[in-house]
Amino acid sequence: MLKAEYKTRSLVPQDVIEAVSFEQPELKEGQVLLEMLAAPINPSDVLTLTGQYGILPPLPAIGGNEGVAKVVEHGLNVSSPDIGQTVLIPISLGSWSSHIVADAKALISLPNGVDPIQMSMITINPPTASLMLSEFVDLQKGDWVIQNAANSGVGSYLIKLAKLRGFRTVNVVRRESLIEPLLTAGADVVLVDGIIDGLNLAKRVKAATNSADIKLGIDAVGGNATDRLGETLCDGATLVNYGAMSGEPCSIAPTLIIFKDITVRGFWLAKWFKTSTPEQQKEVFGTIIGLIVTGKLSAPIHATYPIKDIKQAVAEAASGKRNGKVVMVKE
Amino acid sequence: MLKAEYKTRSLVPQDVIEAVSFEQPELKEGQVLLEMLAAPINPSDVLTLTGQYGILPPLPAIGGNEGVAKVVEHGLNVSSPDIGQTVLIPISLGSWSSHIVADAKALISLPNGVDPIQMSMITINPPTASLMLSEFVDLQKGDWVIQNAANSGVGSYLIKLAKLRGFRTVNVVRRESLIEPLLTAGADVVLVDGIIDGLNLAKRVKAATNSADIKLGIDAVGGNATDRLGETLCDGATLVNYGAMSGEPCSIAPTLIIFKDITVRGFWLAKWFKTSTPEQQKEVFGTIIGLIVTGKLSAPIHATYPIKDIKQAVAEAASGKRNGKVVMVKE
Repeated sequence: MLKAEYKTRSLVPQDVIEAVSFEQPELKEGQVLLEMLAAPINPSDVLTLTGQYGILPPLPAIGGNEGVAKVVEHGLNVSSPDIGQTVLIPISLGSWSSHIVADAKALISLPNGVDPIQMSMITINPPTASLMLSEFVDLQKGDWVIQNAANSGVGSYLIKLAKLRGFRTVNVVRRESLIEPLLTAGADVVLVDGIIDGLNLAKRVKAATNSADIKLGIDAVGGNATDRLGETLCDGATLVNYGAMSGEPCSIAPTLIIFKDITVRGFWLAKWFKTSTPEQQKEVFGTIIGLIVTGKLSAPIHATYPIKDIKQAVAEAASGKRNGKVVMVKE
Repeated sequence: MLKAEYKTRSLVPQDVIEAVSFEQPELKEGQVLLEMLAAPINPSDVLTLTGQYGILPPLPAIGGNEGVAKVVEHGLNVSSPDIGQTVLIPISLGSWSSHIVADAKALISLPNGVDPIQMSMITINPPTASLMLSEFVDLQKGDWVIQNAANSGVGSYLIKLAKLRGFRTVNVVRRESLIEPLLTAGADVVLVDGIIDGLNLAKRVKAATNSADIKLGIDAVGGNATDRLGETLCDGATLVNYGAMSGEPCSIAPTLIIFKDITVRGFWLAKWFKTSTPEQQKEVFGTIIGLIVTGKLSAPIHATYPIKDIKQAVAEAASGKRNGKVVMVKE
């Protein structure tokens, strides 16, 4: 059995994490042993390794926050889920591990036989995308939304969820090579950030949307990209930040905040988990699981690695040049 | 008769404005001739001259947006206000002028004999301070508010209005010499921005307020000062920007927006004038006029000038080193 453990934090995250073997743990009453099938590396996992995330676990810690696994052994007094059942790993349990011990009652059963890689990404990115589309602005069918980092995990779910709800998306990316794949994935408009042919982003968005009012902007980049996104929004719009891929603080002109009455908000899924009711959570996840099982919702995969290659996997996840998610899988 | 007119805009505002003589205009039916008593130079006036404000009047234009005057002549069919009555000039009429023509019905009479300089600043800064304290966060007696540029016009009204409502203020300034005057004016805490004795602003605010939750931050500076103010706020707080004295975009860390759930908003009085009801306006101004007439609300005055010295007055108002307002007065 192998787990990806780190005992300290570093801005070079692959330096501190390593694959460590461990003995099969004793199961207590009510517990089960799980064999990991797939567990993604999310930006929040990388920021936890570098010490830049909002909640940091005590050290040493096992990496990973979500994934799917198969039940392989029951402890005393466990009758379900069945041996062989595919289940969702409870959030924050250290999912980058070949085997995990969990309370049987904390497990959510998933349909067996569905692609575990797509299933492994259910807990974090799809609800983030879904909630950012619903929690801040009351969007109607036909309304436009703009997002940057549109090729990220959250970004690709957002394109699909927006389309399913009848919203239209402007998607801002940093490379021209991303335009075609995102259009194929359902994006309405894809634009490269910055000034192109002498036209700033706001002007090109106006042209592409026929000067539509854009009431919601979603920013995962920070720095001047926040301001460029703000410029594309209509009076009274909301700009939601959920990440800082640029590594820089959000920069936004007072003219946008004051004269255009733009509200800047943040979205943090961990807070939503704390403040939402079980019914709200069930509704959001029920919808997402249904869409993933039926293949309507998926995210592109950049590469998969077994736990023993955790250093290479984290290095690749931390680099900005992926075209999809890096996922840890069963060897 | 003299008016302060500008025909073009420039980042050096005193270059484009000049005192120009004009003939006494004919009064139409229902109009009155006013003699200006006092009219302040606000930051928004300077930004209008430089072309950086949210609404720019067509050129040529007369400077100034508020002030008080005395009725000196009635047009046909005018019975009130009486000749000699002190009145508030309707907003945006070009108040830097020795004489102004106005519709009699648009005038709000003020008590005669009260200091016209303090009265001349009623329309813009006091309601800005008042509304920022009431429109964003439901503050209770004893709650703390933090603001920067605390020695500005708005800042000094905010200190007094907060005190009258039972709120406590942390006031951030750029010079140590401002601490004593602001404490005398009613500030609870005054701190110099930045790092002092190795302690950042947030740490010194914690020490000075006994780690109180601060739910409202008011920023007139922008740049990194926005972030420094954000760091002093509690989870879920609101940061309201209403100016950019630094000339830089607001910079704020995504960690504050995402993990601390700070909402960034803007306040623009012109928008409030458009969206509020006459009853709301009457309530806000009624309270403010009462406080100024009774001497409970006042702002420090840096210097007064007659219209003929408009260039020097604007240059001084535009410089960052004032300790109060520059006000144009009757020669």
